[in-house]
Amino acid sequence: MARRKQIYEGKAKILFEGPEPGTLIQYFKDDATAFNNQKRAVLEGKGVLNNRISEFIMLGLERIGVPTHFIRRLNMREQLIRHVEIIPLEVVVRNVAAGSIAKRLGLEEGSALPRSVIEFYYKNDALGDPMVAEEHITAFNWASPQEIDDMMALALRINDFLAGLFAGVGIRLVDFKVEFGRQYEGDMVRLVVADEISPDSCRLWDMESGDIMDKDRFRKDLGGVTEAYREVARRLGVLRDVEGQGARGPVLVTDNEK
Amino acid sequence: MARRKQIYEGKAKILFEGPEPGTLIQYFKDDATAFNNQKRAVLEGKGVLNNRISEFIMLGLERIGVPTHFIRRLNMREQLIRHVEIIPLEVVVRNVAAGSIAKRLGLEEGSALPRSVIEFYYKNDALGDPMVAEEHITAFNWASPQEIDDMMALALRINDFLAGLFAGVGIRLVDFKVEFGRQYEGDMVRLVVADEISPDSCRLWDMESGDIMDKDRFRKDLGGVTEAYREVARRLGVLRDVEGQGARGPVLVTDNEK
Ligand SMILES: Nc1ncnc2c1ncn2[C@@H]1O[C@H](COP(=O)(O)OP(=O)(O)OP(=O)(O)O)[C@@H](O)[C@H]1O
Ligand SMILES: Nc1ncnc2c1ncn2[C@@H]1O[C@H](COP(=O)(O)OP(=O)(O)OP(=O)(O)O)[C@@H](O)[C@H]1O
Ligand SMILES: [Mg+2]
Ligand SMILES: [Mg+2]
Repeated sequence: MARRKQIYEGKAKILFEGPEPGTLIQYFKDDATAFNNQKRAVLEGKGVLNNRISEFIMLGLERIGVPTHFIRRLNMREQLIRHVEIIPLEVVVRNVAAGSIAKRLGLEEGSALPRSVIEFYYKNDALGDPMVAEEHITAFNWASPQEIDDMMALALRINDFLAGLFAGVGIRLVDFKVEFGRQYEGDMVRLVVADEISPDSCRLWDMESGDIMDKDRFRKDLGGVTEAYREVARRLGVLRDVEGQGARGPVLVTDNEK
Repeated sequence: MARRKQIYEGKAKILFEGPEPGTLIQYFKDDATAFNNQKRAVLEGKGVLNNRISEFIMLGLERIGVPTHFIRRLNMREQLIRHVEIIPLEVVVRNVAAGSIAKRLGLEEGSALPRSVIEFYYKNDALGDPMVAEEHITAFNWASPQEIDDMMALALRINDFLAGLFAGVGIRLVDFKVEFGRQYEGDMVRLVVADEISPDSCRLWDMESGDIMDKDRFRKDLGGVTEAYREVARRLGVLRDVEGQGARGPVLVTDNEK
């Protein structure tokens, strides 16, 4: 059992070298952070749930023709992904005012936006991930105008897909964040959805009760974070083969290498 | 002498009803404010200088075919302008990193930007004039996509003109802010440059010494604010008929109505 080479340890995930060139193993930790790393906690079982939820969503996106980095799940906490060149932007799509846009533009939390709004944030922890405009993105060459157009078109398709997916299980998609990467194939390059799509990166409100079912439970100290994530997973039907295996109790996954 | 109707009193200017429909009188005060009104001072003579400098620049813009609100100067502190529907955006063009972009993107003050960058800020004092992207502007209908394109094209032309104007008198144009308004003529509407263009709304550095010749002298408590504005006006040659009339001493303009 060779020791795998760690490529990067982030706040919520670890990337290891994958079995073949151009692949990575994405390991989902239980660590939660907020407010640019100022608030931290370990939420037992979160990584297992996000691994499942992100797998389920990436597979769904592939099915509608939105390319992603996802290859296959390996185990409870790990998935095999394509190693892509991450575009240093967080692409946020908002349907309802919440979080920073509510504060920035003086909107009431929960008020519908006139239309879905796409925002870009420059991925840079030291600067606090500042919001940027297309002008900054092209001036500093973080992405080309064509890539911006492609990301916006893909982001809107993802928004439609996720809005439908969650509406089907009684959840309102308030907003979400997605990252894109460049996948090089010969002399071709295409944009694919990377990172994860999970309750860590979405705002999800129960349609009936208005209950928060995402990372805001952690940010706002509401408690029951993992329980909410598990409810999202349960409604999406991705818990079938986890249930009874421990997602409800302590989930500690042995590093069962392939 | 009829008492004029005041339309609006801002931080640096007062607008009065003009002599004909569709016109306003813009009165330049000596008041200076910074940091969203938290810092204030009265800088004697500033209004007289900005009235002259803004007149000179607006006339220059008209000459190259960039439409402005300016009709004619009335006296030391007042100019006649077209009453336009102000688009609630501050359009900033930056050539060199300074102020908020340096902070936001972690750039060194004074470093050249890879290219000129246009930024939009939502004019709303209560929210602290937040930076916004085209997405917000169109979603909230502050301006149409066509108007955004027009403002950007005009902003770049103004940047070229001002860069040349100031280069000719040994001054480096670091950045500036401009406002646009809609001028309705029958069933036509056109965008015109409104508000003012002056050392209150530009960053201007002496090319030789690097000395700051703009409102940053006030923001940074460097002193000599009016003196720097007067030097800008002097180099632009707009002081000819002010000199000796009091711009150097106490400037108090009587309300010499037309
Ligand atoms: N397919 C991929 N190829 C390469 N890098 C990826 C891929 N998918 C995600 N990443 C990157 O891996 C990291 C995932 O780790 P994590 O999300 O924990 O990081 P983080 O602490 O949030 O840091 P960051 O601010 O970079 O996102 C991120 O930097 C993400 O951009
Ligand atoms: N041609 C014009 N027609 C109508 N309004 C104008 C015109 N030119 C400028 N204005 C507006 O007049 C006001 C000028 O006053 P001043 O610059 O002192 O305001 P301010 O305190 O800076 O407030 P604001 O945040 O609105 O700019 C501004 O609100 C500006 O947008
Ligand atoms: Mg991340
Ligand atoms: Mg103003």
